[in-house]
Amino acid sequence: MSNQVKYLLDENDIPKDWYNIMADFKNPPSPPLHPGTLQPCGPDDLAPLFPMELIMQEVSTERYIEIPNALRDVYRQWRPSPLHRARRLEQALDTPARIYYKYEGVSPAGSHKPNTALAQAFFNKKEGVARLATETGAGQWGSSLALAGAFFGLEVEVFMVKISFDQKPYRKAFMESFGAKCYASPSTLTEGGKAILKDNPDSTGSLGIAISEAVERAVQRDDTKYALGSVLNHVLMHQTVIGQEAIKQMEMADDYPDIVVGCTGGGSNFAGIAFPFLGEKLRGGRDVEIVAVEPANCPSLTKGQYAYDFGDTVKMTPLVKMHTLGSGFVPPANHAGGLRYHGMSPLVSQMVHEGYVRPTAWHQTECFAAGVAFGKAEGILPAPEANHAVKGAIDEALKCKRDGRSKAILFNLCGHGNFDMAAYQSYASGQLTDDDYNDQELAMALAALPKVA
Amino acid sequence: MSNQVKYLLDENDIPKDWYNIMADFKNPPSPPLHPGTLQPCGPDDLAPLFPMELIMQEVSTERYIEIPNALRDVYRQWRPSPLHRARRLEQALDTPARIYYKYEGVSPAGSHKPNTALAQAFFNKKEGVARLATETGAGQWGSSLALAGAFFGLEVEVFMVKISFDQKPYRKAFMESFGAKCYASPSTLTEGGKAILKDNPDSTGSLGIAISEAVERAVQRDDTKYALGSVLNHVLMHQTVIGQEAIKQMEMADDYPDIVVGCTGGGSNFAGIAFPFLGEKLRGGRDVEIVAVEPANCPSLTKGQYAYDFGDTVKMTPLVKMHTLGSGFVPPANHAGGLRYHGMSPLVSQMVHEGYVRPTAWHQTECFAAGVAFGKAEGILPAPEANHAVKGAIDEALKCKRDGRSKAILFNLCGHGNFDMAAYQSYASGQLTDDDYNDQELAMALAALPKVA
Repeated sequence: MSNQVKYLLDENDIPKDWYNIMADFKNPPSPPLHPGTLQPCGPDDLAPLFPMELIMQEVSTERYIEIPNALRDVYRQWRPSPLHRARRLEQALDTPARIYYKYEGVSPAGSHKPNTALAQAFFNKKEGVARLATETGAGQWGSSLALAGAFFGLEVEVFMVKISFDQKPYRKAFMESFGAKCYASPSTLTEGGKAILKDNPDSTGSLGIAISEAVERAVQRDDTKYALGSVLNHVLMHQTVIGQEAIKQMEMADDYPDIVVGCTGGGSNFAGIAFPFLGEKLRGGRDVEIVAVEPANCPSLTKGQYAYDFGDTVKMTPLVKMHTLGSGFVPPANHAGGLRYHGMSPLVSQMVHEGYVRPTAWHQTECFAAGVAFGKAEGILPAPEANHAVKGAIDEALKCKRDGRSKAILFNLCGHGNFDMAAYQSYASGQLTDDDYNDQELAMALAALPKVA
Repeated sequence: MSNQVKYLLDENDIPKDWYNIMADFKNPPSPPLHPGTLQPCGPDDLAPLFPMELIMQEVSTERYIEIPNALRDVYRQWRPSPLHRARRLEQALDTPARIYYKYEGVSPAGSHKPNTALAQAFFNKKEGVARLATETGAGQWGSSLALAGAFFGLEVEVFMVKISFDQKPYRKAFMESFGAKCYASPSTLTEGGKAILKDNPDSTGSLGIAISEAVERAVQRDDTKYALGSVLNHVLMHQTVIGQEAIKQMEMADDYPDIVVGCTGGGSNFAGIAFPFLGEKLRGGRDVEIVAVEPANCPSLTKGQYAYDFGDTVKMTPLVKMHTLGSGFVPPANHAGGLRYHGMSPLVSQMVHEGYVRPTAWHQTECFAAGVAFGKAEGILPAPEANHAVKGAIDEALKCKRDGRSKAILFNLCGHGNFDMAAYQSYASGQLTDDDYNDQELAMALAALPKVA
């Protein structure tokens, strides 16, 4: 048996195309609807928000969309990312399972987010956009877009969910070091933010609110577009470099995953690792079980409805068909800020709805326990979001142990936890809690879902 | 011209041996002296502190010492580390220089320190040691030894310089996540610490004090040894994997450095990149200019004396011949905690003394300016220590611009700044200052150097 623990590809193995899972869907995806008319949106409806090339990617049903060479050159700084066999973790768990993880924390911002941040900045720059407005939860996305703005010469304005802004002050310092502006959301810079603060001056914010603010800023100014770090088709597609590389690396390992695990907030890192494998299955290739892991206190896939809903709180965005807790739902605080979103990517939602993806939910304390066990074995403390994927993978590995079966489990370690040590501190001192959502609030948010024929 | 920006080696290219520069010295190194007798120390004198295999490495004059395969297997998680061509930085500086950097921030602890932490833990474990005591400045070394302890099943106890302990609370959380204990130094756990606190209850500590505390803990207990993150011969030797890889990577780039730059605190990351190149020069190979960059407010190489001195403040360690500011000198606070040491590795000191290394000193604000410029261009915010190397490299690149000459400049980017965002925050808000040392205090500390015949 080889004792090699990481599988590295050559730079020439950086994928030349993004993979578009819509090409392999059995059923056509439901179109986004205009928030005013509730009629299907055309590309022109999205033009105030996005450059045309990204809009065309959003609606494309081509299986492969070429990655521009100038962008692949930037990816080269850290791509292909390594795929590791977690032998020390396997030993610590005493499991017959073969555990692999794809490590996206090697990117300059420490997560998978630069894969799409750089792509979005590239296409915006190409179409003459001067400024990008965006939101961020835990800060991974805002940091990545700040970085992309510095690389491509774009101004970047980030609305950061207030609870994360307060929990993670160093994220702001990180973004500002790259020349970006970072505001706590809800802010007084937008009408949407002001309205929220009027009702609730102590609002801790949410991704839904921050999206509203960033969209408002983009719509108000001609030289400004909006960038979203997850949820949308083109964003998920940009992340498929992860899974495409992983397929080649599993070949190097002379193995193939029985199970692929990812954490889900908006769905982008999950889709990044899972869709290329799922695509092979949809095209009649090898079977694979796909597990999505979400936080138990923001359970869009396991407790939400599959319905048309707004992407934001102020109801400025198009409606999309997705698993949602209702755009008015504000999840309780947790340290996995990147998973704290009321909705879910339409593509991931459809795959869950059609039974191709098995959703699971775990509480944050059990996810941190998994993350610390992983860290002690593998040397990397994951981001709180990634701890959910670790937990999902460990759970499957322990099932293997109980059943005496050796399965290959691959998960996406989408980012490191270097900026999240306050959460680890809180976990270590026994102060981390699992605040559940309020059943009645969820019921109300679901009851308020827009009525779409 | 290739637009490749990183040079990656195969795992088989992880060096099979450490390089021991003593084999190539023209003049024999001065021996360490026993703190009581002031006579040369033998291996037995060091036995209470270190396992015998590390002691033999410390005194060896063999050119190559084999890296155990079991240790190379652990190195494989992130080694060989990448070497990047900083093309975007070159463009930003508009310099004809070719700038390369070796990036050690890809290690699980985010710096070069695991190269020796894992080696030291490995040899201690092999000889049945149960516990390691150590000190840490900025926390990079303590984090790395904590990690190594988790990998090899050793308890780890870290004395962290109080000013850094307060500035960087997340470093403690990081170490504790790996199961280590971390104490602010000076502490009340040792006689040395108590004596310092009695004289100065508000002491912000220093590496010299923290070393005293860790040494005391090791000497007191049979199952405990001491581990040092820099300064000593064997520690510097473990770091030579960096420069050995860099030599191969410069070959891949079809280039050779005219100048090699590293920052110096105790000397280990500097020696790691520089000694393999310097060794080639000492053996009659290609010429190379070597530049050491130290903080202007802890200037052991540029303002210290080359003399025998204690490694610690309480005068428990052997005396070594080195550039020193005096073991009683407490440097002013700065954010490059890893460079805040009164002395310097004897090997680096000898190379400076003999004219093979050119020492330079810069203030921290100019180093942060360099680090931010580097970050915007290359996407990585360096650790404050590494900013000194960045500053040194940029300075050489700007000289090239003035002179219209293209030189190849290689520097060691020894760690990322993810745990140092408070310092970047302070820099961005204009609050970072350059507190100089007190001339009189330095003069007194130098006057108190031990008299050795």
